[in-house]
Amino acid sequence: MLLENYAEGKWVAGTSGLRDLRDSVTGKVVAQTSSAGLDFGSMLEHARMVGGANLRNYGFHDRAYMLKALASYMMARKEELYELSYSTGATRSDSWIDIEGGFMTLFAVSGKARREMPDGSPDGSSASKNVFVDGGLEPLSRGGTFMGQHIAMPLQGAAVHINAYNFPVWGALEKFGPAFIAGVPTIIKPASDGSYLTEAIVRMMVESDILPKGAVQLICGSTGDLLDYVTCQDVISFTGSASTAQVLRSKPNIIGNSTRFIAEQDSLNGCVLGLDAAPGTAEFDLFIKEVASEISVKAGQKCTAIRRAMVPHKFMDAAVKALSERLATISIGNPREKSTRMGALAGMGQRADVLEKLGVLSAENPIVIGNADKFTKGNGAYLEPIVMRCDNPLEKTNVHSVEAFGPVSTLMGYVDTEEAVTLLQKGGGSLVASVFSYNGGFTRDLVMGASAFHGRMLISDRTSASESTGHGSPLPNLVHGGPGRAGGGEEMGGVRGVMHYMQRTAIQGSPSVIANITGEWIPGAQARKTKTHPFRRIYKDLHIGDQLHTKSRKVTLNDIELFANSTGDTFYAHMNAEAAKANPFFEDRVAHGYLLLSWAAGLFVSPDPGPVLANTGLNNLAFMTPVYAGDEIKVQLTVKRKKRRTEDYGEVGWDVEITNQNDDVCARYELLTMVAFEDT
Amino acid sequence: MLLENYAEGKWVAGTSGLRDLRDSVTGKVVAQTSSAGLDFGSMLEHARMVGGANLRNYGFHDRAYMLKALASYMMARKEELYELSYSTGATRSDSWIDIEGGFMTLFAVSGKARREMPDGSPDGSSASKNVFVDGGLEPLSRGGTFMGQHIAMPLQGAAVHINAYNFPVWGALEKFGPAFIAGVPTIIKPASDGSYLTEAIVRMMVESDILPKGAVQLICGSTGDLLDYVTCQDVISFTGSASTAQVLRSKPNIIGNSTRFIAEQDSLNGCVLGLDAAPGTAEFDLFIKEVASEISVKAGQKCTAIRRAMVPHKFMDAAVKALSERLATISIGNPREKSTRMGALAGMGQRADVLEKLGVLSAENPIVIGNADKFTKGNGAYLEPIVMRCDNPLEKTNVHSVEAFGPVSTLMGYVDTEEAVTLLQKGGGSLVASVFSYNGGFTRDLVMGASAFHGRMLISDRTSASESTGHGSPLPNLVHGGPGRAGGGEEMGGVRGVMHYMQRTAIQGSPSVIANITGEWIPGAQARKTKTHPFRRIYKDLHIGDQLHTKSRKVTLNDIELFANSTGDTFYAHMNAEAAKANPFFEDRVAHGYLLLSWAAGLFVSPDPGPVLANTGLNNLAFMTPVYAGDEIKVQLTVKRKKRRTEDYGEVGWDVEITNQNDDVCARYELLTMVAFEDT
Repeated sequence: MLLENYAEGKWVAGTSGLRDLRDSVTGKVVAQTSSAGLDFGSMLEHARMVGGANLRNYGFHDRAYMLKALASYMMARKEELYELSYSTGATRSDSWIDIEGGFMTLFAVSGKARREMPDGSPDGSSASKNVFVDGGLEPLSRGGTFMGQHIAMPLQGAAVHINAYNFPVWGALEKFGPAFIAGVPTIIKPASDGSYLTEAIVRMMVESDILPKGAVQLICGSTGDLLDYVTCQDVISFTGSASTAQVLRSKPNIIGNSTRFIAEQDSLNGCVLGLDAAPGTAEFDLFIKEVASEISVKAGQKCTAIRRAMVPHKFMDAAVKALSERLATISIGNPREKSTRMGALAGMGQRADVLEKLGVLSAENPIVIGNADKFTKGNGAYLEPIVMRCDNPLEKTNVHSVEAFGPVSTLMGYVDTEEAVTLLQKGGGSLVASVFSYNGGFTRDLVMGASAFHGRMLISDRTSASESTGHGSPLPNLVHGGPGRAGGGEEMGGVRGVMHYMQRTAIQGSPSVIANITGEWIPGAQARKTKTHPFRRIYKDLHIGDQLHTKSRKVTLNDIELFANSTGDTFYAHMNAEAAKANPFFEDRVAHGYLLLSWAAGLFVSPDPGPVLANTGLNNLAFMTPVYAGDEIKVQLTVKRKKRRTEDYGEVGWDVEITNQNDDVCARYELLTMVAFEDT
Repeated sequence: MLLENYAEGKWVAGTSGLRDLRDSVTGKVVAQTSSAGLDFGSMLEHARMVGGANLRNYGFHDRAYMLKALASYMMARKEELYELSYSTGATRSDSWIDIEGGFMTLFAVSGKARREMPDGSPDGSSASKNVFVDGGLEPLSRGGTFMGQHIAMPLQGAAVHINAYNFPVWGALEKFGPAFIAGVPTIIKPASDGSYLTEAIVRMMVESDILPKGAVQLICGSTGDLLDYVTCQDVISFTGSASTAQVLRSKPNIIGNSTRFIAEQDSLNGCVLGLDAAPGTAEFDLFIKEVASEISVKAGQKCTAIRRAMVPHKFMDAAVKALSERLATISIGNPREKSTRMGALAGMGQRADVLEKLGVLSAENPIVIGNADKFTKGNGAYLEPIVMRCDNPLEKTNVHSVEAFGPVSTLMGYVDTEEAVTLLQKGGGSLVASVFSYNGGFTRDLVMGASAFHGRMLISDRTSASESTGHGSPLPNLVHGGPGRAGGGEEMGGVRGVMHYMQRTAIQGSPSVIANITGEWIPGAQARKTKTHPFRRIYKDLHIGDQLHTKSRKVTLNDIELFANSTGDTFYAHMNAEAAKANPFFEDRVAHGYLLLSWAAGLFVSPDPGPVLANTGLNNLAFMTPVYAGDEIKVQLTVKRKKRRTEDYGEVGWDVEITNQNDDVCARYELLTMVAFEDT
């Protein structure tokens, strides 16, 4: 199998210097790969000029729907990937994390984008389709003619994804998804080992014919001089070793252009057994189970794997015993055999590297579980789980700084909460830490003390255990990355992950100017009174800024009394003039806020059946000017924003402003309704 | 005047190598400065161990109140600073930007923090006082026993602020404010020129006795080997030249520790006169006024100043003429004299640098306004406004890449919208661009095309002109920074600016675990039923998780009819069973959502006067299960979060859950009330 590169819309093989990729179990050559002959500068230009331009023709939701379709398409072809994946040494359940985990990440990113990002082009025509509104309006003037709004828009460059060998599918897709949603084309560069899987999914992407041209390219081999051409509009997302990251990040072109560099590198992830979690407790068992799982799943080749497991001194012997027993039940062997629970490392090179690091680590702390010399013969890159014991970790250094990227971990003893926090911090910045404890004070203290050093912290106890996704699983809705040694980068995390591929810009101007840019109506912006009642118009015929002004209705003391008596809300400010006047907010008996909301609905509703299906909620309600008996209220209802929700209807957010006879604003809120695409 | 450093809580003078700082007008030595002899590693340790620990003893609001008090204290002493500031060449109105602009930034940051960040320690006892809740809950399990929440907590390091010479006060305070709110101590390192002003405000900070020990330190002079000691918990925020930034960012220690490096460096800010903005329009006049102002205020020494002003070819001659006339009215001279409108550059060194860059620029495009040879004699660092003209800017390079940091700008001709966008992009990433146009399509196209290259874009027109804060003013509520050449950093922007000094961490666990960490109650977390009704308790006696369960109340068809008739909300789904059943959301005539809200209030209210003063609003209301005639609803009311608002009362957010007889959730929302600190 000769792997090809996908450059500028064409599949091309490297012209020289083919590299052999070997099966981790048999040692046979599985594939050959090279990127020689590619014009990397030209690939970047293709991404920017073809890919970026095509992607920005769509909006966030359009791309989210494409991503969902792509994930479904690939899921239907998953067995092709499972078959290939055995060559990486992965068992079927290891591969599930990589393959289906990758597709599920795309589904999740797509869903998150549709829920949390604007649907800029519900009718395919909006000029603001790629504008993400970031945070609230910033009032900058007393008169309200000048204000600010942060927006984010797609960078006009390429996403260069340099990935690690351990998850050839997931590793590519968890980065591709957010970049694609942002509207930025990706150039994927997998690590050589396992790159036949990445090549296979890029072939699927191309064959699916779902993605706009130029949205994805692939480099199977060296990136050559590619990084010499990046600009301020490109993003590099790197996963790999700290030493490689250091070389890349130091490149003058990258620093000179302030090119964004997202790094996910070494991580000595910690895990803490609580002082309360004695042998026999649920948390002790959960801890042992998790440490064993993190050592053996993917043969320990996960950037999130537990490298440092902290145990109260008093529970140390019990922990070693329990972990040893649990690890002994794990059968190691050819991942193609069903009985195998743990497969091989990604290759003999990786195995040698792990053994070298293990030498450094075991010189500092003795091995208490496992035998590194087992499986020394044959072509399979096997390694038994190895656990070291360290009873004085504050005096040791390598255990906190050297990562053996395989089935290797160290149990470390600790005395008290403060020491556990110190040990977690000694990782110098990690992707994740977990705490196994049912003591709220203890878990809180650990988070307060150590979260500044971690991108993710998981607290496991008897309450959440059966539903917990576990220490080692990055999730698409949560950020993945960590400070310091872990690289300082962030990936995923819902919209947070998408923002890495967008530029945040503060926009200043009049309300009309801002509404015209964001595609969302705001108070003070131009509006349009229409002849027909907006409730009588189907989704596509409702335009941002369409506005209804209602008649007014006078509030009487009798109305307030009736409302109080029928609802039971006889709060004194509604019932007793003297008491109301003593309240710092009111000058007299005040109408119920809920009376205002209810009457507002009565004023703006169009009662007969029509496209408006239901009021599903409201947001950001503020009561501003009290309404007293004698006041007359009226309502201004304006289409603020729209979002497709199903095949049949979409959500329309309306700005509702209730004013009195002096035009003082009594209440303002966003009303949410579902509106049908077609009249029934 | 011998400037001192403030290191480890003591004022100390440099031990050798004193540098002379000269008055920009007279050339006389104003001050001498040196940081020789300081132990920089020890200063960092002091910041971390003393400053950070002290700061984290308080919560966000505590620190916000301190910041407000500090700003008031310094404002009262502002005249001391105005007097010193003349030596920098600044006029009184230039100094206003620096001095009062700096204090107002602190007021704004304080206010923003109190409005948008949690008040973790309303009664001084919360363990979660430094936890900022970032975004919404992430449901991670079907059963709801396991979920995620992003939080941000203060970094446990120091903020190293390396500032530019042009704003010795504002430049220090706009960075200090956000770091202080975050709970991170600052080491301020001003540029030498004007550092006597920075020293003066740090003296005020110390003398105010408002800040916790270790919160601030000052280096007047070189930072020596300080950057060799930074870790993953420190933040460097640099303002200065791109070349210095490149040297600092490349340091192996900084890259190796993934130390955050916020850079604000060169910026060839653009400004576009619209195709519609012909001479005679309001926008043309606004453009000329703004360009003239940006050239002359602070003698053009602003990182946001307009360096490239783009004008439609057809309006070019008129623009040159109008700008020339306007600039001619600006009197240049000693800033101490009242008639002076434009003072001197910060020093003869700066003046020489500007002239050198001007040489490069004017070799490319001819000078059409101003004479660089005026003021060549004497000790004052004066320079006349200089404007060049470039009619073919797409063919030129230096005008887009060389910044003369003084009263220097170039007018560039352009043809159409696309070319204006291209020219803005050619800055390679800028802090700000502005557009002067009353054409919504034009301004939107410019933002869509160029925002990815800018940190801020301002649209100026006749509507907002009288209230606009202008092209050149960074505002505390908006991000300040820009991609690419501008450094890729972000400062300010409300909470966004604070987040640079905090670590975002995804927390996973059971609802109780998460609530225990954030200090905010969430559904599913442990709650506490109390004997007295929560409305009868004053602010400090309401604890997060205090919960009330109401009686239930049955809804009848008659109730729905009465509610419809009294409010006027006769929407068909409430009135007509057949029509309601045809609606995809309902199975029968449904009770009004507002009936549920009103009844809920009736169920949970405690009517007599007491500490609860008013219902001021509600958030995130979702109607989930429809309520039909025959259903019985009841309410669970839980204290979710608390925030001090005035001297007399605070805001309490309540989680309100309305359920039916089957415990299906019919509606959920956050209710906001004001609750008094004391019973009256």
